[in-house]
Amino acid sequence: MRIYDVEGFPNPARVRMALAEKNATQNVEFVTVDVMGGEHRSDDFRAKNPDATVPFAQLECGTHIGRCTAIIEYIDGAFDGPALIGDTPRQRAITQMMNLRAEDGLVDAVGAYFHHATEGLGPDLETNQLPAWGQRGYETAQSTMRYLDTVLSDQPFVAGDAFTMADITTFAGLAFADFAKVEIPSELGNLLSWRDRTAARYSES
Amino acid sequence: MRIYDVEGFPNPARVRMALAEKNATQNVEFVTVDVMGGEHRSDDFRAKNPDATVPFAQLECGTHIGRCTAIIEYIDGAFDGPALIGDTPRQRAITQMMNLRAEDGLVDAVGAYFHHATEGLGPDLETNQLPAWGQRGYETAQSTMRYLDTVLSDQPFVAGDAFTMADITTFAGLAFADFAKVEIPSELGNLLSWRDRTAARYSES
Repeated sequence: MRIYDVEGFPNPARVRMALAEKNATQNVEFVTVDVMGGEHRSDDFRAKNPDATVPFAQLECGTHIGRCTAIIEYIDGAFDGPALIGDTPRQRAITQMMNLRAEDGLVDAVGAYFHHATEGLGPDLETNQLPAWGQRGYETAQSTMRYLDTVLSDQPFVAGDAFTMADITTFAGLAFADFAKVEIPSELGNLLSWRDRTAARYSES
Repeated sequence: MRIYDVEGFPNPARVRMALAEKNATQNVEFVTVDVMGGEHRSDDFRAKNPDATVPFAQLECGTHIGRCTAIIEYIDGAFDGPALIGDTPRQRAITQMMNLRAEDGLVDAVGAYFHHATEGLGPDLETNQLPAWGQRGYETAQSTMRYLDTVLSDQPFVAGDAFTMADITTFAGLAFADFAKVEIPSELGNLLSWRDRTAARYSES
C-alpha cells in the first residue's frame, strides 16, 4: 500500500495513527504531495483522488481510496491488531457515529476556520474564502470540544471502553485546533486528560 | 429497534431504504418527531441525539445511534440480507469513500443550499442563515452530480458492481435536490438512468 500525504497535516496524521495502532507503518510506502505548490489540484492528482485532498491510499490492486475514514476502514480490515472500528454491529455503529461527530464537529470545523477565517495556506491556495463561515467553524469546534468533554466524563475513550478511530479523529482535531489557534477551553478537564493519555500512546512508539 | 424520524425527509429516507434492502422494515418501530414544531431542538431530544437531527435509532439495549451512516452500519450488521457496505476491506473502503462523497457533496451540499439560501423550513427554524454558503452548496451539489455521472459511466452502482449504502445516499441526495430545486443537469445520462433503475427497486416493494 502507498499513502500519498504530507507528514504533519491533520488528516494525514489520522491515517498514520491508525497504522501505528496496527504496528503496520513499515508496510506502507509514503509519497509526499507538494500541497503548498498546488500539486493536489493538478489533473493528474484529481484523476487519482477527485477530492483534491491528502491523504489518499493506493492499494496493491491499484485502486485509489480517499477519505480518512475509508482508508482506516481498509487498514482496520487488512492488518492484524486491535479493532479500530469495533467487533459488533453496535460497537461499529457507535464508532462511526462518534467518528463523524469528531470529523464534522472538530477536524472539519477547525478546517473551516483555518481555511476561511485565517490566512490558512496562504493567498495562492486560499482563493475562495468565506470568513463568516470560518467563524462558525470556530464556534462549532468549541461546542464539539464541550460535548466530547461530557462524553469522556464517564467513559475512557470517545466511543466507549476501547480505543477506536473516533479517538484518532478527535486527537487529530485537537492538534489542528492548537495549530489554527482555536482555543481548547481550560475547564474541559476530561478532554484534556484524555488527550494526555492518547499522546502517551504515540510518544512511546 | 426504534427509529425516530420524519417520513419523507432526505436523511430518514436513507435509513428506510436500508431497511427495505434488508427486508427488515417490519422489525422497526417508527416514532415521528415534530421537526416543524422544533422538537429536535428540545433538551429531551438532545439528550438522546446531541446532533439535534433526524433520524436517530434506539437499539434494544437503549443505546442511541445518530448519523445515517452509523445507523446503516448497525442495520447492515444486525439483519440478514445483502451486504450494504461490502464484504472485504477493499469493498468496505470503497463504499465508505463513495458514501462520504455522496453525503458531503450531495445530501449535505443540497442541505446547505436549502437551509441557507432558500426559505428552508421557514423563519421559525432557519434562524442562522448564511446565503453565500448556501450558494456554494448549490455549486458543490452540481459538481458532485457530474462526478457521479462519470463514475457511473463504467460501473452499474456508485461503489462498483453491487448496490451499497453509497447508492442509497446518492438516491436520497437527488430526491432532496429535486425538492430543493437544485437542477440535475439533463445531460447526465448515466446518473439519470442509474436513478431510474434505483427507483424501480423501491416501486416494486
